[in-house]
Amino acid sequence: MTKGRLEAFSDGVIAILITIMVLELKVPHGAAWADLRPLLPLFLTYALSFVFIGIYWNNHHHMLQATERINGKILWANHHLLFWLSLVPFGTWWMGENHLAPVPTALYGAVLLAAAIAYTILLRAIIAHQGPGSALAKAVGSDRKGKLSALLYVAAIPLAFVATWLSAAIYVLVALIWLVPDQRIESRLQ
Amino acid sequence: MTKGRLEAFSDGVIAILITIMVLELKVPHGAAWADLRPLLPLFLTYALSFVFIGIYWNNHHHMLQATERINGKILWANHHLLFWLSLVPFGTWWMGENHLAPVPTALYGAVLLAAAIAYTILLRAIIAHQGPGSALAKAVGSDRKGKLSALLYVAAIPLAFVATWLSAAIYVLVALIWLVPDQRIESRLQ
Amino acid sequence: MTKGRLEAFSDGVIAILITIMVLELKVPHGAAWADLRPLLPLFLTYALSFVFIGIYWNNHHHMLQATERINGKILWANHHLLFWLSLVPFGTWWMGENHLAPVPTALYGAVLLAAAIAYTILLRAIIAHQGPGSALAKAVGSDRKGKLSALLYVAAIPLAFVATWLSAAIYVLVALIWLVPDQRIESRLQ
Amino acid sequence: MTKGRLEAFSDGVIAILITIMVLELKVPHGAAWADLRPLLPLFLTYALSFVFIGIYWNNHHHMLQATERINGKILWANHHLLFWLSLVPFGTWWMGENHLAPVPTALYGAVLLAAAIAYTILLRAIIAHQGPGSALAKAVGSDRKGKLSALLYVAAIPLAFVATWLSAAIYVLVALIWLVPDQRIESRLQ
Repeated sequence: MTKGRLEAFSDGVIAILITIMVLELKVPHGAAWADLRPLLPLFLTYALSFVFIGIYWNNHHHMLQATERINGKILWANHHLLFWLSLVPFGTWWMGENHLAPVPTALYGAVLLAAAIAYTILLRAIIAHQGPGSALAKAVGSDRKGKLSALLYVAAIPLAFVATWLSAAIYVLVALIWLVPDQRIESRLQ
Repeated sequence: MTKGRLEAFSDGVIAILITIMVLELKVPHGAAWADLRPLLPLFLTYALSFVFIGIYWNNHHHMLQATERINGKILWANHHLLFWLSLVPFGTWWMGENHLAPVPTALYGAVLLAAAIAYTILLRAIIAHQGPGSALAKAVGSDRKGKLSALLYVAAIPLAFVATWLSAAIYVLVALIWLVPDQRIESRLQ
Repeated sequence: MTKGRLEAFSDGVIAILITIMVLELKVPHGAAWADLRPLLPLFLTYALSFVFIGIYWNNHHHMLQATERINGKILWANHHLLFWLSLVPFGTWWMGENHLAPVPTALYGAVLLAAAIAYTILLRAIIAHQGPGSALAKAVGSDRKGKLSALLYVAAIPLAFVATWLSAAIYVLVALIWLVPDQRIESRLQ
Repeated sequence: MTKGRLEAFSDGVIAILITIMVLELKVPHGAAWADLRPLLPLFLTYALSFVFIGIYWNNHHHMLQATERINGKILWANHHLLFWLSLVPFGTWWMGENHLAPVPTALYGAVLLAAAIAYTILLRAIIAHQGPGSALAKAVGSDRKGKLSALLYVAAIPLAFVATWLSAAIYVLVALIWLVPDQRIESRLQ
């Protein structure tokens, strides 16, 4: 089974997810700068989620670049990842419209954590299918970035009930960690 | 006529269908866990429909993997399948927002049944185009899974007026039957 | 300039157009069969527009199958076609929600006519780029189907103010004319 | 790293952006021609934004036609461009629904300016990756059109507070400048 359509379908779903988030930026009734101010928290959350979905797309791209063949297990692991990513718009809207209230901020972290776990499951499914000496396994190595991100999400969820700005800062930190392009796979592939 | 664009167009439509379903998960006004509770039935229906559309995408993928050339009849059989799949979000929302009320639960099954019939029509159109000794015909065999699913939908529709939880259980059962990846086509192709 | 991305972009836009039409089938508040009845006119219009957009996709597919290279003029002729197609959902909703009222029924025909004209412009741009002895020109021939459709739309628009059911019948007739797959291009290509 | 998926993902996002703009053309309650009149300003803004997004797609297409390989920096420069393009629907709706009020008209220009800057950053990232003697650098040359567009946006933003019709005229002018297909890259590639 070739990976072409898996990539195309994932591209489609991720493109839609990253785009429909903007639909909740409802056009204000007034036409003054002040009318945009209530949209600011949602706009910032939107920008953050745009980066997160961009990160997932980049990593998905890198991962499948190092993948030749897929199987049924990989298809479902991919659907599972897309399912959690499909909840990112909801998490974004709820957190953004409630100005970082504790529960929505914790839920946002939980959705990101679930997506991170789903990504790891997909990665493991591909490595298992490639067999021993997998090129992807070598490229990923100990997956320190992935583990660190998951740990940070686990910390951010309860912290939302202590100080939501701390959770938000952690989400921004995770995004920054990944914005540095993943040299590992890239360098191994060359 | 090559199959590339048929796959790309179907990927696009299915990617949108699986994604726009989440738009009906309307962001609650409050910011407490309790505000999420009314969304739970719709969320569960969403997850179920996500799996169903994932199943259709996987099967479509397998089917076209075993297809070389297409014709006008196959194009229309494919549009026909996409039409019924396009009603899955509506069925999902109506059933999810009415907490498994009888009529919406029956309609959901009817939409799934129509999609299943449309899928079979598409399968037959491809096999007819491949001519005798079709690789796909051998791979599909007697299509027991497909027939069983159709029978289960036929049972679930009237059962919705007796006990909706039974219909819901049948829908979950059909999903589980297909979550087991389709070994038939996969093994034949290798 | 190769045609690959033009096809991919058009597939994306057409896939979204054919899908978002369903978003206006708003979930009814009640959960009885009777609650679906007000949706019936919109549902029928939706089904008709689904067929029309399917026809455009098929014809676009056939046309580009017979196209090797494109230029800037073709890109813009394609955007022009997509623009008019993007108004089909609006036309569908307005006509469907007003139960075939005269003005919306005429507007629906006008949108279809504009799309038909845009399609012809695109076809001519491709033929002009292919130069004399164009394979596509031979395959299309005198384009009787296209001319007949345009004439029927021209008739249906004023007829909407006489008897809307007549305009609606004409739209269904045009759809049926095209549902017969276009043998011309197909046979020439083989 | 090959460019195939970058193109596919960008095609997906741009196709969605160009299409969802039509969702704000809300179906009027009445069924007379007069009921369409309030939609006219939004319709015209929609048509203008459709052209702008078409221009970006065309230029993106040309640019990647002249690109062989990409890297992580290019991926992020591309996401950055898509982010600003994703705000075009919001800008379109706000300007269109407020009949060219000053602040929305200025914001529309600001979004277009940000997208133009993001496009230049992406162009520079690709040229930097191609190394000295880059084919794209030669094709783009001094990028007069790009610089002129940016200057015109910079002028249009403050002018919105003097005479909004002037800003609108400038936006139309920029669109017309680009509607003339970009001969530079096209001719160099042949």
